[in-house]
Amino acid sequence: MISFTCDYNEGAHPEILKRLQETNFQQEPGYGDDSFTQSAIAKIREATGCPDAHITLLAGGTQTNATVIDAVLPHYGAVIAVGTGHIAVHESGAIEFCGHKVITLPSHNGKMAPEELKAYMEKFYADPTWPHMAHPGMVYISFPTEYGTIYTKEELKSIKSTCEQYHMPLFIDGARLGYGLASPAADITLKELAQLCDVFYIGGTKVGALCGEAVVFPRGNAPENFFTIVKQHGALMAKGRLLGIQFDTLFTDGLYMKIARHAIEMAIEVKKAFAEKGYPFYTDSPTNQQFPILTQEQMANMDGKVLYEVWEPLPDGHAVTRFATSWATTQEQIVKLKALL
Amino acid sequence: MISFTCDYNEGAHPEILKRLQETNFQQEPGYGDDSFTQSAIAKIREATGCPDAHITLLAGGTQTNATVIDAVLPHYGAVIAVGTGHIAVHESGAIEFCGHKVITLPSHNGKMAPEELKAYMEKFYADPTWPHMAHPGMVYISFPTEYGTIYTKEELKSIKSTCEQYHMPLFIDGARLGYGLASPAADITLKELAQLCDVFYIGGTKVGALCGEAVVFPRGNAPENFFTIVKQHGALMAKGRLLGIQFDTLFTDGLYMKIARHAIEMAIEVKKAFAEKGYPFYTDSPTNQQFPILTQEQMANMDGKVLYEVWEPLPDGHAVTRFATSWATTQEQIVKLKALL
Amino acid sequence: MISFTCDYNEGAHPEILKRLQETNFQQEPGYGDDSFTQSAIAKIREATGCPDAHITLLAGGTQTNATVIDAVLPHYGAVIAVGTGHIAVHESGAIEFCGHKVITLPSHNGKMAPEELKAYMEKFYADPTWPHMAHPGMVYISFPTEYGTIYTKEELKSIKSTCEQYHMPLFIDGARLGYGLASPAADITLKELAQLCDVFYIGGTKVGALCGEAVVFPRGNAPENFFTIVKQHGALMAKGRLLGIQFDTLFTDGLYMKIARHAIEMAIEVKKAFAEKGYPFYTDSPTNQQFPILTQEQMANMDGKVLYEVWEPLPDGHAVTRFATSWATTQEQIVKLKALL
Amino acid sequence: MISFTCDYNEGAHPEILKRLQETNFQQEPGYGDDSFTQSAIAKIREATGCPDAHITLLAGGTQTNATVIDAVLPHYGAVIAVGTGHIAVHESGAIEFCGHKVITLPSHNGKMAPEELKAYMEKFYADPTWPHMAHPGMVYISFPTEYGTIYTKEELKSIKSTCEQYHMPLFIDGARLGYGLASPAADITLKELAQLCDVFYIGGTKVGALCGEAVVFPRGNAPENFFTIVKQHGALMAKGRLLGIQFDTLFTDGLYMKIARHAIEMAIEVKKAFAEKGYPFYTDSPTNQQFPILTQEQMANMDGKVLYEVWEPLPDGHAVTRFATSWATTQEQIVKLKALL
Repeated sequence: MISFTCDYNEGAHPEILKRLQETNFQQEPGYGDDSFTQSAIAKIREATGCPDAHITLLAGGTQTNATVIDAVLPHYGAVIAVGTGHIAVHESGAIEFCGHKVITLPSHNGKMAPEELKAYMEKFYADPTWPHMAHPGMVYISFPTEYGTIYTKEELKSIKSTCEQYHMPLFIDGARLGYGLASPAADITLKELAQLCDVFYIGGTKVGALCGEAVVFPRGNAPENFFTIVKQHGALMAKGRLLGIQFDTLFTDGLYMKIARHAIEMAIEVKKAFAEKGYPFYTDSPTNQQFPILTQEQMANMDGKVLYEVWEPLPDGHAVTRFATSWATTQEQIVKLKALL
Repeated sequence: MISFTCDYNEGAHPEILKRLQETNFQQEPGYGDDSFTQSAIAKIREATGCPDAHITLLAGGTQTNATVIDAVLPHYGAVIAVGTGHIAVHESGAIEFCGHKVITLPSHNGKMAPEELKAYMEKFYADPTWPHMAHPGMVYISFPTEYGTIYTKEELKSIKSTCEQYHMPLFIDGARLGYGLASPAADITLKELAQLCDVFYIGGTKVGALCGEAVVFPRGNAPENFFTIVKQHGALMAKGRLLGIQFDTLFTDGLYMKIARHAIEMAIEVKKAFAEKGYPFYTDSPTNQQFPILTQEQMANMDGKVLYEVWEPLPDGHAVTRFATSWATTQEQIVKLKALL
Repeated sequence: MISFTCDYNEGAHPEILKRLQETNFQQEPGYGDDSFTQSAIAKIREATGCPDAHITLLAGGTQTNATVIDAVLPHYGAVIAVGTGHIAVHESGAIEFCGHKVITLPSHNGKMAPEELKAYMEKFYADPTWPHMAHPGMVYISFPTEYGTIYTKEELKSIKSTCEQYHMPLFIDGARLGYGLASPAADITLKELAQLCDVFYIGGTKVGALCGEAVVFPRGNAPENFFTIVKQHGALMAKGRLLGIQFDTLFTDGLYMKIARHAIEMAIEVKKAFAEKGYPFYTDSPTNQQFPILTQEQMANMDGKVLYEVWEPLPDGHAVTRFATSWATTQEQIVKLKALL
Repeated sequence: MISFTCDYNEGAHPEILKRLQETNFQQEPGYGDDSFTQSAIAKIREATGCPDAHITLLAGGTQTNATVIDAVLPHYGAVIAVGTGHIAVHESGAIEFCGHKVITLPSHNGKMAPEELKAYMEKFYADPTWPHMAHPGMVYISFPTEYGTIYTKEELKSIKSTCEQYHMPLFIDGARLGYGLASPAADITLKELAQLCDVFYIGGTKVGALCGEAVVFPRGNAPENFFTIVKQHGALMAKGRLLGIQFDTLFTDGLYMKIARHAIEMAIEVKKAFAEKGYPFYTDSPTNQQFPILTQEQMANMDGKVLYEVWEPLPDGHAVTRFATSWATTQEQIVKLKALL
């Protein structure tokens, strides 16, 4: 049986395993002081065009979101996100566990509307009772979003501008960053994105690594004692080499974007396959997650042959589904999928 | 240069890398639902003699301590540990971050004295102002301790008995569990230890894995919704296979204890080497960490030839040092070390 | 100038000040062990028809909501409220500060629709990813609501029934409880309300006291060590007599409900005054808060003569306003207000 | 029966009740915007010699400690206190509840030794693993201490100097501030104390008020959005007038220090009474709390005639006791006490 369930249902890109093998007998310091992590940081600084970037390698997405948000916010602050944002839905209240409210704005296919953010902030400070309300201290968006969509450069600029006006850092969750940047719909590069936010992370887990997310403060603007904060959140890996080797590999010879482009090519074929057979889509995603709507019959037909995620049951019995591609998706799998439609 | 700095300065046991390679192209569900994790759980249940054990694989030690303590304690509760306990010293306040005070008792070479625990509890409830004080809700000990020492079966029984009397679960931090059980000084087995506590973890990171700690609730006595708690703590790994494969390998053909026994054999040679040359020790450790006391001259002599940790400078200019062995320690390294003494 | 701004803009009911004077030279133990608190508890047990009630006197509303919610929820749990609920809007994120997400349902003039709560819970557990989502552990409603509306007995029964089905305690915020029960629209008594929830509080601050809210666990069902929890939240008053005397006075000779009925009578006159002049209302409130909609001209006309709260500016330049009555509202004030309409 | 149990076992100073009566029918805004609070702030600025002071009135001590410490510390920071400090012992873990570790130094009759603080900080930063340890971010001391002792000006200067060196604000818990300043042993004034710390509070509850503590940031150096932080901690009183009237009264015509001086005079008589009869003391307290050591027989003799607190049972069956005086202590009570010795 083949699976398009999720990009984290695969192993690591083979190049990563190869490097783990080659380096296994080296003795290296722990906690990120290993040579691989140092090398990875240098390469990510290069790739992001941020020579002063403060970069930290963490293990997973929820951990990264919770640690970064807690580190960046004033301790009494709240973070603004769209209602479908990962931190608002699928992190079991990890942000609130750290003491912070997630203020939700409407989601437009996963995206925040810049003008709605602006309007929210204007209304907030126009209300004389604002000191009695949770204090908006930063903004969180995902690139790409949980619905596969991406922001344009103009939208990011507009959101950033509101953030600056209200002294709120902008945080971009890049769990699937590569897939966003590699999309033909993207009008922004990694270097540009780094300039348009205050902190972001480059997702490894979903883009070829076994685990790992690289947190980037582009202008060296990490909060004081960020290392201690990471440790306090249980997010400091003893054998930092595991993360260092992976990111060093991903950022050698452009592997990260190669993986992303491959997955996007495969996703476009998946999309075409469904579209040609007349399947409607829940949202027009230009990235590695596709959301075709299937009937009960169509789902029954796939049973036992292909795995995917049921995203949301619809009132009429149909269902929004998700088909995700990755570094490991093959032409053979696409062919098999097509045969089932 | 050779290093005895720490057991986490090595890569993974080769068998683990081999299994990562072999399984890399399998598609597997995330979040611990992969077949490797399921297999690992079955093997750990067997090894601990706990057929009903509730077992969860997490990535690192501080994360595990914070998650377990927060899950087991009432939300207003405090945890009792010795002053040198890892949670009291080297976790950046991760337990307090979760809202819990760490109440400290005196450390006796890293160990808690059972009678001092009992006396503390008697005094606590004898004080009529106890409801105004942080509420002792569980007990934390390490096996082996941060000073390499281990508890006897009688000591564990005595601590457990006080815990039961005061309705406090007993949690054993087993970051180096294998090294404790493999010590010639140990009078307890893994199965017995599992019976003498309410929750413990089997450390992987320091015993051959790249990362990973297996949390065991021996009698299926995990708190309700433990999965959600783990996620909320940012401790749920998306590609759970990474942890599953490692623990499945460690618990196949007794690899875990083989690694531990090898490290202990090496540690005994290290100990002998120092003892024969008349070096004093800070504590008489029967496990993989040795704490010889070195003079300034002796340290200068090792400079650039061998790495170790300076544990604690002493007022007379000498220093307590730590030399740790692991699965990767070789006879060649021991020979080189001896030549320097 | 007269003020209808809020029910907490007045001093204490004179009977309370009288009792403070009379008892001032008595020496009494602190922390709620004083004789007045004990007497108040006995009287509240009587008034609520709950002989086994566990009753605690706290100082203010936000403090009470945060303490009760944190005490009742599992530490990883979330509380369900309507989007206009006090805990969701005007408590500066106090609930999230304690680690708990506030899950919001739609507000219907301040009220939760029982069927929407039921539908939410059904959908929650039907989603296989629910363990990744914030865990709904209790339900919070206000009686009366922030918009002055009240629940019918049937609605409370229906909400309670869903709560029971999903093992979620029901908490009723009674900051203005008296005004709800004294409303001619109420079809429920204090004794009945106590039976239909798991914990509620009887608001003192807004119903004649200087400060104080009485938390009632009707069936003695307070969480273990609730006293310690209260202390930990900074909510334990040293001179508990201040709260004890006030609630003892409020629950002597039915003073609490007398105050409430007086305020309701005054509110009905306020309502009539606006209605007769053709002012529209934002919501049809049967309690002590009235929400007439005023034009810019009408507001200008009142300028410098009467105070009230601008609740919400409307797009057309009009504004929802709030006029609140209390124990201290007089016929003279009503007459003056009428003269301005 | 007379009681010397605690200074919070009395009602309010009569002048306060008188003012509550006189002002009761005034309508005043809530949340600290009332005219009394504004007047109290002006008078406290005058009394402390701090024209720019940022002053906030809160209700109780634990609440104040938790709010101030959480507001001042970086969110990941720890607070240094002596082991007998109120925050370390009798606040049920309220500081840890807010996420902060309390690092304890030895107590010398309740006091921190300036040189031990300095030594601790030097050792902390000399340890290369310090980023793995809870981060000392502020210092907490009490004036007077929980054992009635007070710091000299030199000691405060020395502690402040270390604080400045390590960028740690100094917080003085003044729950019984008046009794410290009014002591004949004090070599410091209120104005001087305000210059020697970064934040302190003037205790009202134990010095004549029903409740209330005035938090003073002497140089207007309150953390941004302190109001929101107070609200989030549940520490914002709706009827702020209750606190405003009390502090306005206490700081009119020097009432606060008059109360304190009276209590000190009474305490000196208590001390003499015990000393003349040869009772030993646990500590030589120059403030309103006296700690004579009593035998079982002496305690039996007082049974039913005078109340006091048993502070600490001693191994020989004797007990350290506490006798506290206040604004309400009378010569008659002293005479009665003497008759029992």
